[in-house]
Amino acid sequence: MAYTEYFTPTHVYFGKETERLAGKVLRENGAKKVLLHYGSSSAEKSGLLGVIRTSLKESGIDYVELGGVKPNPRLTLARKGIEICRSQKVDFILAVGGGSVLDSAKCIAYGTPYDGDVWDFYCGKKVPEKRMPMGCVLTLSATGSEMSNSSVITNDEVTPNDKFGCNTNLGRPVFALMNPELTYSVSKYQTGSGSTDIMMHTIERFFHNGPELEMTDQIAASLLRTVITNTKKALKDPSDYDARANLMWAGSLSHNGLTHMGYVSNGDWACHRLEHELSAIYDVAHGAGLSAIWSSWARYVKHTDPSRFAKLGRLVFGIEDNDPDSAAEKTIQAFERTFTDFGMPVRISGLGIDATDDVCRMLAEKASLKGAKTLGNFQVLQTEDMYRIFKAAR
Amino acid sequence: MAYTEYFTPTHVYFGKETERLAGKVLRENGAKKVLLHYGSSSAEKSGLLGVIRTSLKESGIDYVELGGVKPNPRLTLARKGIEICRSQKVDFILAVGGGSVLDSAKCIAYGTPYDGDVWDFYCGKKVPEKRMPMGCVLTLSATGSEMSNSSVITNDEVTPNDKFGCNTNLGRPVFALMNPELTYSVSKYQTGSGSTDIMMHTIERFFHNGPELEMTDQIAASLLRTVITNTKKALKDPSDYDARANLMWAGSLSHNGLTHMGYVSNGDWACHRLEHELSAIYDVAHGAGLSAIWSSWARYVKHTDPSRFAKLGRLVFGIEDNDPDSAAEKTIQAFERTFTDFGMPVRISGLGIDATDDVCRMLAEKASLKGAKTLGNFQVLQTEDMYRIFKAAR
Repeated sequence: MAYTEYFTPTHVYFGKETERLAGKVLRENGAKKVLLHYGSSSAEKSGLLGVIRTSLKESGIDYVELGGVKPNPRLTLARKGIEICRSQKVDFILAVGGGSVLDSAKCIAYGTPYDGDVWDFYCGKKVPEKRMPMGCVLTLSATGSEMSNSSVITNDEVTPNDKFGCNTNLGRPVFALMNPELTYSVSKYQTGSGSTDIMMHTIERFFHNGPELEMTDQIAASLLRTVITNTKKALKDPSDYDARANLMWAGSLSHNGLTHMGYVSNGDWACHRLEHELSAIYDVAHGAGLSAIWSSWARYVKHTDPSRFAKLGRLVFGIEDNDPDSAAEKTIQAFERTFTDFGMPVRISGLGIDATDDVCRMLAEKASLKGAKTLGNFQVLQTEDMYRIFKAAR
Repeated sequence: MAYTEYFTPTHVYFGKETERLAGKVLRENGAKKVLLHYGSSSAEKSGLLGVIRTSLKESGIDYVELGGVKPNPRLTLARKGIEICRSQKVDFILAVGGGSVLDSAKCIAYGTPYDGDVWDFYCGKKVPEKRMPMGCVLTLSATGSEMSNSSVITNDEVTPNDKFGCNTNLGRPVFALMNPELTYSVSKYQTGSGSTDIMMHTIERFFHNGPELEMTDQIAASLLRTVITNTKKALKDPSDYDARANLMWAGSLSHNGLTHMGYVSNGDWACHRLEHELSAIYDVAHGAGLSAIWSSWARYVKHTDPSRFAKLGRLVFGIEDNDPDSAAEKTIQAFERTFTDFGMPVRISGLGIDATDDVCRMLAEKASLKGAKTLGNFQVLQTEDMYRIFKAAR
C-alpha cells in the first residue's frame, strides 16, 4: 500500500514585525522557561535579540541563552544546549536564526528528554520518540528547516567530521515567526547560496522513481520560477521586501513536503548526500556545494529518463525541444546559468577545493559508508558512480 | 501590525486504499469511541462503510453511527449528533463523505463540549473554544473542508432557511484519509460543481485589497490550470486516477490557506456569501450556484482593478492583451467558457430559478442582513450592489 503523507503542523506568522509576537505565541503554547538559541553576533548588533528579549519579558516568560551556533552546526554545542536545558528545567526552545540554528535547536530538542547519546538519532541507531517543543524566528531563506522534518548536524568529535541528518515529524517546529525584513542584511553570497538550497529541495524531489502528480509538478515549477526571478531582484536590491518575502515563503514550501506530494518516493537526494561530504570536511556553504555538484549529477543520470529533465526545462524555462536528450541538456545548462547568475559555482573548483583523484575517491567512500550504502532512487548510485560524479564535478 | 497566518495541522494520507488506515490512525490519535458520520446510502452500497467498520474493529475501536447527512447539511441532524456524542461518551468523530458530512461533523465537534446552543457559533454570537477531535475519509473533491477552518450549516429551524459559516482553526481536521479512487463514482454534474467550488476558493482569494505575493499568485494559477485540465479528463473518463488525484489534492490546497498566503486580507468572498442565499433557499449545488453568479459579480467590480483580472487571465489562460479592461473581459469570458465546459450554469436561470425582481431584492436583503452588513473587500458591496449583481446574473 503506497501513499504519501503530508504533515505541516507548524503555525506560521508571516509579515513585518512578526518577531514581536514571540512572547505571546510562546505563552499561547504553554512555554514557561525558554532556551533562546542563536548564532553569531549579528542578531545582537541588529537589535533583533533585544526585541525578542523584550517580548519574552513582557509576556512573563523566563529564559536562558545559548549563542554561538556556526554554519554546519556542531554536535558539541548541541550537547552544551542539552545540558543547559536539563539543568535549568527549560521547557521550550526558541531558535533565532537560519537553518543552522534551527537544526542545532532540533538536536537539543531531541536530546534533552533522551537518556542516551543524541548522536544515536543522527547515525541511525535510534528514532526520536519525544522532543522538547520548539519555535523559531527565521532570519535566512534557505534550508526550510522552519517547517521541515529535517535536522543536519556535523559531528566535530571525529576526524574527518561526519555530517548526518535526522528526519522525523517531531522535528517540525510548533511555530515560525517569519519577517522577510530580517533577511535584508543577508550578503549576496549567502542570498545566492540560500536560493540554490531552496531550489535544490524542490529539484531533488522532482526526480523520483514513480508516477507524477501534475498538481505537484506545477507547484514545483511555479516555485522554481519565483525563486529565480526574486533572487535576481534581491541580489540587485537587498531591501526589496517583495523579493525577500517570496524567497522566504518559497524556502518553507520547498522543504515542507508540498513539492513531493502525491509522488510515491520522497525524491532522489543524492546531491544532498554528496554535498554533505564536501561541507562536512571543507565547511563550504551548503547551497554553493549543491550547485557545484548538481549539473555533474544531472549529466550522469539523465539517460535514465531524459523526458523528466525535459519537462522541468519546459515548465521552468520554457524550453521547447522535442528531442528529450537535447531538451535535457538544455535544461541542465539553463540551471548552470541560473546558479552562475546567483554567484554560485557549478564546479567543485569554484569552492576553492582541489578535488584530486584521491579526494574524489575518499569522498565517494565516505558518502557510501565504504560501499555499505547506495544513494538516490531516480538512478541508484554505487560508490563507483559517486566517485565518477565527484570527478566530473572537479 | 499586518501579517498572514498559515496553519494546516491536518495530517494527510494520500493514495489508493488509504481508507483502510482509519482504525490505525484513530488509535494513534487516542480515539476510543468514535461517531461514524456519513451521508446517503452510496457509502454503504459501495462497501466503503464496511471497509471502515472492519478497520475500526481490527484496531479495537468502539463506534456508534449517524448517517443521513444531506447536501447543505442541516442543523437538526447536527443536534442529533451532539446528543449521541454526549450520551454515548464519544471522544472522536470520523466523517466519511464530502464537504457536507465534514461540515456537519465540525458542527457536532463544536457543539458536544459546549453548554449553550451550537448555532451561537454560526450566527456569530460566540467563538468555539473547544472541540471534539475529528478526522475524515474524503469521498468528494470540492469544498476543501478536509483541511479548511470552515464549516457551513443550514438552519432548517427557520423559514426561509439561514445558511451561515463558522471559521476557526479548531475546525481543521486532525487527519484526512484521501483515496482518489473513492471519487470515481461522483456524477458528471457533481464533478463539475465540485471543480467549480475548488476554483472559486482560489479565485475568491485572488481578489483582495492589498499587495500581492508572487509565489502565491503563481501557485493560485498553477492550481486553476491543473483543475481545468483535469476536470475535463475526469468528465471524459470518471475512473482516470491521475485526474481524480489532481482534483482531490487541488481541492485541499485551494481552501487550506495556501492560496492567500502573504496577502493581507483573506480574500473577497462576496460570491460565496451571495451563493449561500441561493443554496439556503433553493438547495442548489454550491458550485453551480457559484458559477451562476461569478461572472456577473466580476463584471460589476472589474473597474476597481482590471489589471488584477488581466493578470489572472494571463497566468491561467495565457491571455495577452495590453489593455487591462479588454483583458479583464476576456478573462471573465474564459472562465464562463470553462464553467460551461464543466456543465455548470453561468446564469441563475440555469439553476432552474426564476429570479424575479422581488426575488433579487429579497436575496440582497438577506445577504446584507437588511443592510446591516457589507460583503467583499476587493470592492465593498452594499445591499443595492448585491441586488444589481443578482439582477445581472438572472
